[in-house]
Parts: sequence; structure tokens; C-alpha cells
Amino acid sequence: MSSSQFDHKLSGPSLAFQPLYQQVAEYIKQLIVERRWQPGEMLPSEFKLADEFNVSQGTVRKALTLLTDTKIVTRRQGVGTFVSEHTAQDALFRFFPLQADGKGADLPKAELISKELVEPNETVQHALALAVKDKTVKLKRRRILENEFCMLETIFLPSKMFSDIEKREDIPHTLYHFYQTDYNQTVFKTRDSIKAVLASKSDAKSLGIEKGTPLLLVTRVTESIEGKLIEYRESKCRTDHYHYQVELD
Amino acid sequence: MSSSQFDHKLSGPSLAFQPLYQQVAEYIKQLIVERRWQPGEMLPSEFKLADEFNVSQGTVRKALTLLTDTKIVTRRQGVGTFVSEHTAQDALFRFFPLQADGKGADLPKAELISKELVEPNETVQHALALAVKDKTVKLKRRRILENEFCMLETIFLPSKMFSDIEKREDIPHTLYHFYQTDYNQTVFKTRDSIKAVLASKSDAKSLGIEKGTPLLLVTRVTESIEGKLIEYRESKCRTDHYHYQVELD
Repeated sequence: MSSSQFDHKLSGPSLAFQPLYQQVAEYIKQLIVERRWQPGEMLPSEFKLADEFNVSQGTVRKALTLLTDTKIVTRRQGVGTFVSEHTAQDALFRFFPLQADGKGADLPKAELISKELVEPNETVQHALALAVKDKTVKLKRRRILENEFCMLETIFLPSKMFSDIEKREDIPHTLYHFYQTDYNQTVFKTRDSIKAVLASKSDAKSLGIEKGTPLLLVTRVTESIEGKLIEYRESKCRTDHYHYQVELD
Repeated sequence: MSSSQFDHKLSGPSLAFQPLYQQVAEYIKQLIVERRWQPGEMLPSEFKLADEFNVSQGTVRKALTLLTDTKIVTRRQGVGTFVSEHTAQDALFRFFPLQADGKGADLPKAELISKELVEPNETVQHALALAVKDKTVKLKRRRILENEFCMLETIFLPSKMFSDIEKREDIPHTLYHFYQTDYNQTVFKTRDSIKAVLASKSDAKSLGIEKGTPLLLVTRVTESIEGKLIEYRESKCRTDHYHYQVELD
């Protein structure tokens, strides 16, 4: 396996000492980030990619397997390899961990309560690694499962990445999909910190529960496919007949 | 790629219609389950495995990559491929999600409070898919982070898989490692359901906190590498200066 030709083609010094297929995967990912292919679009065949990158087809195949494992591309048997798309439904199931007790994953609805441009507080600044002058857009939502309010969300987006989003009248329920289609920000990873808290008077009113009810407070930082921090979110979740579901392996 | 010879060798009808490398991975996993190689032991070389299974070395390599991704084996660069071992530390970091705020993962300690053979209640029976007559061993523990009680655990183990474990005087802190070394049960997957609850009088006493403090209630079902349900666990976690950490991607 000779990596010199490929290194030359990429001329990226940081790519040294990686197996060739990892370098190819990294390069394909970069092309996806740069929108050479759109979400949902089919990639060229392994044969064509191998030819273009001047590597073997086996190497391209390994690279695509790696990108499939990290969900950057999706393979459809007998058809080809596609740039993964956050369809509304996919993203919801993948990143929405609250479930009604005794039931499988269900599609939550959302009600947008408010949207405004704000100066972020220190917590938000720190979580999103913002500069002092950076503004954020703050969205407040209620989530609905089985016709009941199950969750209150406060969402902060860096306004430099989501320019004028607070002026949009057409913000849909399915935010992650919207980030991808309208702002070219693809959610790649979320990190949740979970605590138990007591419902405040205002939480209680919004969720239709008693003040002092125990709630989950889920603090989420979301990273894009490019490794940027694109969203900070605090969710207060009822668990009287819902639970937060996690699988580890 | 001809799979007929290999199918013949395995003579398993359920293996049809899988790519060859997946079949090889499945077969190697089966051999690991059957203890042909012990945890921590090195597998034969790719060349030898390819020869034994009558497949190409590339196929063996792909199979080992799959087994590496699912953490069944571990590769050490320039040395070889090893059957993954739950070293005490690995398993703790991988499956213990509670962290002190503002700090990284830390090794929790444990204090065993009680151990007894019991008839499981319906919840436990259902969670572990037990028959009516099956008994369970119940362990109660307190977990300690930074010299403070952070968690109360109630653990149920099917006594048919963990014979006489309640009589052992040498149960260590690192249970998952102990399950593997002493009972040949390798933890492969955990499924946590998280709710917020209020500390009862007895929780409060055990954890040294006020009654009514909000706690996380984490209900965990654990599956072995063989796909058996080997443990049911209820953990009550303080979050006044700890949080439960989850990454999704």
C-alpha cells in the first residue's frame, strides 16, 4: 500500500501516519462538508472514487465502511452510497431519547413559545466556546408526546452560524433537519449531562404539573460534522410516565 | 468471493445471505463465547485464521475490524488481536456514567451493604425474563466518588448463572470484571432508563442528604456477549454535584 501519491494529491501534512483508508475517509468527509455532494445525494462508484483518488478500490471500500459506521454516509444494498441526510424522522429517533413508559420510540411534536436574539450568559458562552461579543438566538419550546407536554426546551444557537433565524416565521418542529437544509449545519454528535431537579413554579405552569415535581434537567451540547459547537440546549423533562433511554455497548 | 466452502465448514443454515466477513466475525465470536480463547488471550494471526476458515486474509481482516468495532476483540498495533477483557478499569469507565461536575471520568469505589438469595418480584422477573421458580441474588451497594456517597445500587442476578455468589466473601468493587473472571459472563450491552425521583427517608439516610432531594433513578438491564440478560439494577444517584453523562452520535 503506497500512500505517497495520495499524500501528494492531498498535500496535507496532518494526514501523515494514518492508514491510507482513514486518509481517504477523512478526505471524502471533507468533500461532503464542502458540499461537493448534497445530503441525500449518491456518491460516485467505488471504481470512480478509486480512480480519482489514485488508490485501490479496496481502500475506497474500507473508507466508505468507516464513513458508514460513523453515519456520515449510508449504503443502500445494490444501489450505492449516499450522503446521510437528517430526514426529520431519522434525526428525531436518533437524538430524542425521551420515551413514554412501556412504549417504543415515538415522534414528539413541538410548540415554539418564543425566539429572540440575546447576549448569552457565561454558561452558554462557555458551552459554545463563543467570543465575548458573539450573540445567540434563544428559542423556547414545549415538546409534546401523546398529547401531553413532556418537556420544556431552551435552545441557544450562535447567530453567526444561524444568521437571522430569529426572524424566520417558518421554523419547523424538526430543528436538526432544518439546521442542515437551511444553514448547512449537520448534527453529528450530542453530549448530554443529566441531573434531577425540582420543577419551579414556572416549569410547573408550562408543563401542567405540581411545583416541586422531580424533573430531569438535560444539558446538551451539539457538535456538527465539521467539529463546530452549533447548539446548547437545556431541557426539563417530566418522568412521571416518560423515561430517558440510553444504550451503552 | 465464494462462501460455499465456508458454509460447508460451519454447516449453519442461519448464516446464509450474510456477507462472508460477517459470517467469519460471527463464527469467531462464537468461538470466543465457547472459550476457545480466554479474555486477554491473543488470537492466531490473520494468516492462520484465514487458512483455518478457508477464506482470504482480507476477509479475516474485515471480520476482525467488525469485532473490534463491537469491542469483542482489541487490536494492539504491531502485536496482534486480543480477546477483550473487562479489566476492572475499562469496564468501570465504559459503563459507569456518573461524573463529578467539572471533572472527567473518575474511578468510583463501592461498599457492599448486603447480599441475599431472594424470590424476585414481578419487575425483576420481567426485566430478566425469568421463569416463576427462578431465584435471584440481591446485592445492595453504595458507590463512592471523591470520598462521598453518590449512589445507592440494588442489583439482581439470576442465581442459575451466578451460583452461590451470595456466599462469596470476596466480592470485589469491580463487579463486571468479576462476572467475567468467575462466572464466564461478559457484559456486552447495558440499557438504562432514567427518571427523576425524590429521596425517601431511607435513601436520604444512606446517602447523607435531605429527604425529598431530587435523585436520578437509573434502571439498567445488562446483556451478555451471548445475548443473555444477566443483571437488573436500580441505582439512585445524587446530582447535587454529579451528573450522568451520555454521548450520542
